[in-house]
Amino acid sequence: MSEIGVGIVGLGNVGSGTLRVLHENAESIAGKLGFPLKVRAICSRSIDEQAPGEADLHPEALRTRDWRELVARPDVAVVAELVGGTTAAKEIVEAAIAAGKSVVTANKELIAESGAALWNRAAAGNVRLAMEAAVAGGIPILTALREGIAGDRVEALTGILNGTSNFILTEMERRGEPLGAILQEAQELGYAESDPSADIDGFDARSKLAILAATAFGMRIAPERIPVEGIRRIGPIDFTYAERLGHTVRLTASARSGPDGLRLRVGPALIRKDTILASVMGSYNAVWVRGRHGEDTFYYGRGAGPAPTGVAVVSDLMAVAREIGSQAPGGASPFAHRALVECAPAPAGAEELRHYLRFRVRDRPGIIAALAAILAEHRISVDAVLQEPRFDKKNLPFVITVEAARRDAIDAATAQMSRLDFLLEKPLALPLESGLAAH
Amino acid sequence: MSEIGVGIVGLGNVGSGTLRVLHENAESIAGKLGFPLKVRAICSRSIDEQAPGEADLHPEALRTRDWRELVARPDVAVVAELVGGTTAAKEIVEAAIAAGKSVVTANKELIAESGAALWNRAAAGNVRLAMEAAVAGGIPILTALREGIAGDRVEALTGILNGTSNFILTEMERRGEPLGAILQEAQELGYAESDPSADIDGFDARSKLAILAATAFGMRIAPERIPVEGIRRIGPIDFTYAERLGHTVRLTASARSGPDGLRLRVGPALIRKDTILASVMGSYNAVWVRGRHGEDTFYYGRGAGPAPTGVAVVSDLMAVAREIGSQAPGGASPFAHRALVECAPAPAGAEELRHYLRFRVRDRPGIIAALAAILAEHRISVDAVLQEPRFDKKNLPFVITVEAARRDAIDAATAQMSRLDFLLEKPLALPLESGLAAH
Repeated sequence: MSEIGVGIVGLGNVGSGTLRVLHENAESIAGKLGFPLKVRAICSRSIDEQAPGEADLHPEALRTRDWRELVARPDVAVVAELVGGTTAAKEIVEAAIAAGKSVVTANKELIAESGAALWNRAAAGNVRLAMEAAVAGGIPILTALREGIAGDRVEALTGILNGTSNFILTEMERRGEPLGAILQEAQELGYAESDPSADIDGFDARSKLAILAATAFGMRIAPERIPVEGIRRIGPIDFTYAERLGHTVRLTASARSGPDGLRLRVGPALIRKDTILASVMGSYNAVWVRGRHGEDTFYYGRGAGPAPTGVAVVSDLMAVAREIGSQAPGGASPFAHRALVECAPAPAGAEELRHYLRFRVRDRPGIIAALAAILAEHRISVDAVLQEPRFDKKNLPFVITVEAARRDAIDAATAQMSRLDFLLEKPLALPLESGLAAH
Repeated sequence: MSEIGVGIVGLGNVGSGTLRVLHENAESIAGKLGFPLKVRAICSRSIDEQAPGEADLHPEALRTRDWRELVARPDVAVVAELVGGTTAAKEIVEAAIAAGKSVVTANKELIAESGAALWNRAAAGNVRLAMEAAVAGGIPILTALREGIAGDRVEALTGILNGTSNFILTEMERRGEPLGAILQEAQELGYAESDPSADIDGFDARSKLAILAATAFGMRIAPERIPVEGIRRIGPIDFTYAERLGHTVRLTASARSGPDGLRLRVGPALIRKDTILASVMGSYNAVWVRGRHGEDTFYYGRGAGPAPTGVAVVSDLMAVAREIGSQAPGGASPFAHRALVECAPAPAGAEELRHYLRFRVRDRPGIIAALAAILAEHRISVDAVLQEPRFDKKNLPFVITVEAARRDAIDAATAQMSRLDFLLEKPLALPLESGLAAH
């Protein structure tokens, strides 16, 4: 093998990071592979208007606005789809596979939605599909699941998969400021999108969880079937109460194999302060995995950013190039399992978890009695009642923690509570994440 | 491919764990590979006397006391060398490669000493060599370096690679008891060997560091050239003083690329309490990696134990089997780099680090003055002097921290200090680990 040619589609953050890593690490990449990776074509809709940048690090590459031209190039063996979204991206990936090219993508949404179908096409066409960059940026979590601990059966995993949400929550914890102020600051600094919904409403983490679950458990789960809650209702007061319980609050994405199937959830949860997951601060990502035999493993790193994500794309390009170079027919499944089983998540309502219920009320006698009566009616046992001093009686936040109870009982009880006239808002119910190893 | 046959040599902890994982996860392994892994032969010197155990999970396998018989079997495509040591193990691995078999090994000592030569033989013979289990048991750190972050250049790494030492240090921190008592307890519980030297004198961690450095930097370093210090001199008092400095004490193994080459060290060091590495407790292992582009990644899990190490062996068996199944010629280098560069570590003496110097003295006036004069003579600046109250004046432990100074200056100063008559023992000098990311 004298070289493998690469085509890069998309010149945003990830495309630029990829081009920079390919340039700066060219020597080390060739030393590992035994041949160089050469960027043969770069495609961007705005390539003609673009200011000097990473594309200029590869002056010998064709520059084009037309991805079809890039895909058709005989000297491009691998296409890196770094466009994002699901419409054009899907067309590009399908066209590349149809043209006999292997594909590397960083596109979580596309893979969560259509990864299994794309892999079937790739396998049929005897080309490779790789996607390490689609989950948790610079953390090689898919490689770990697919190769490093492939011999184990995963029982459960919990991840912090959205850096923007984690940044907002850890800043809220540190500074005691509300979500709005921190979000605005994050937007001004470019850490958060002007439309923050994908991040703070949990949809980004949900796509990543669908990919992790496919790789860890061999099951295809449509992302829209995964229950999702965002962090908009979390406030500094929740960190105050969580702290009193020895916990903190994080947006977690979790999957757990049980007798009635795979239980999946994205949402804010209380996690114990003495777990290693609780120490994940700022925009970092992390994944904790529980294996049947290998027990706990934990992976941590940058969840986003041009260079860390670029490293993931380049590592995939190398793995694909190595397979092409060895002239092995076909490729290994990017999901670890050769075929994914279609799967509906286990009914979320049946899961039994301890819960944290936070209320805001106009204080008057009989409130605890009224709430406790509703809990009793749903056969939910009260664990503790916490009330910080120093709050306005007209807007009093307090917390009831309850023993393990079915999620649907919690939902029914909080729905019934919402009709009580002393409540200023619907109760906030957060599960206490269980089963994480203490460090 | 209808199946790949495996031969297991060695029925100790790792061999037994491997056989158990192969049995219990057989279905999931076949689902991932597309064909089963079949144990075709099991070799142990004492196989005839052995009580019923994991070998019985594979009743169809040949049982033999003669590894040559196992290696010669035509239905064995991969040999797992799980014997340990370097004499017989080397002979087994070389014979297997010569017979055209791929090899998976968990043998850190063998790979640290002879891994590069064995890989050259394997490459020449067009067979595979894999060794994930040789470093950090259940943590897929070699896979991460070789595949997951292959696109990056590693700048530095620091690991906690010896579970026994970490268990002793974290128990010392928690209970305030001396090393001897905790070691004895660990030996009684089977956590520590009756001869604990490999663990507590740092040799085990040194072998693992040599393998990590080869994989991360592409350099072959003879393990005996890596400076090593053990933990025998660490006492509860060091945790008391470290705590006052916002640090803890761990046996770390570190490698850092610098202008004068690769700097390597195994030894006890002070690490900041707010780093994620400081949260690694008990027998867990962890590796922190700093990449040029990917920034920090961190890997954590069980460093030993039959089942976690068995998962690593089985994951290697699967990767090797997949390559054999794809009929690709040759295999990827287990060291990430196709050829390792022979390398002498950078001279340790030139490294500039902050240090913690702990003294035990018979107290009298003028001690600080005498020590400070020697430090000044070696151009070492004092940072702080710490002295806990409540100690016996005849055996008074206290600490001087110094600003960044060359290691050889520290060594010269402490050697000169050792001749002072008020010192009860040679000063203990521990570096402050720098550059670790806070979490």
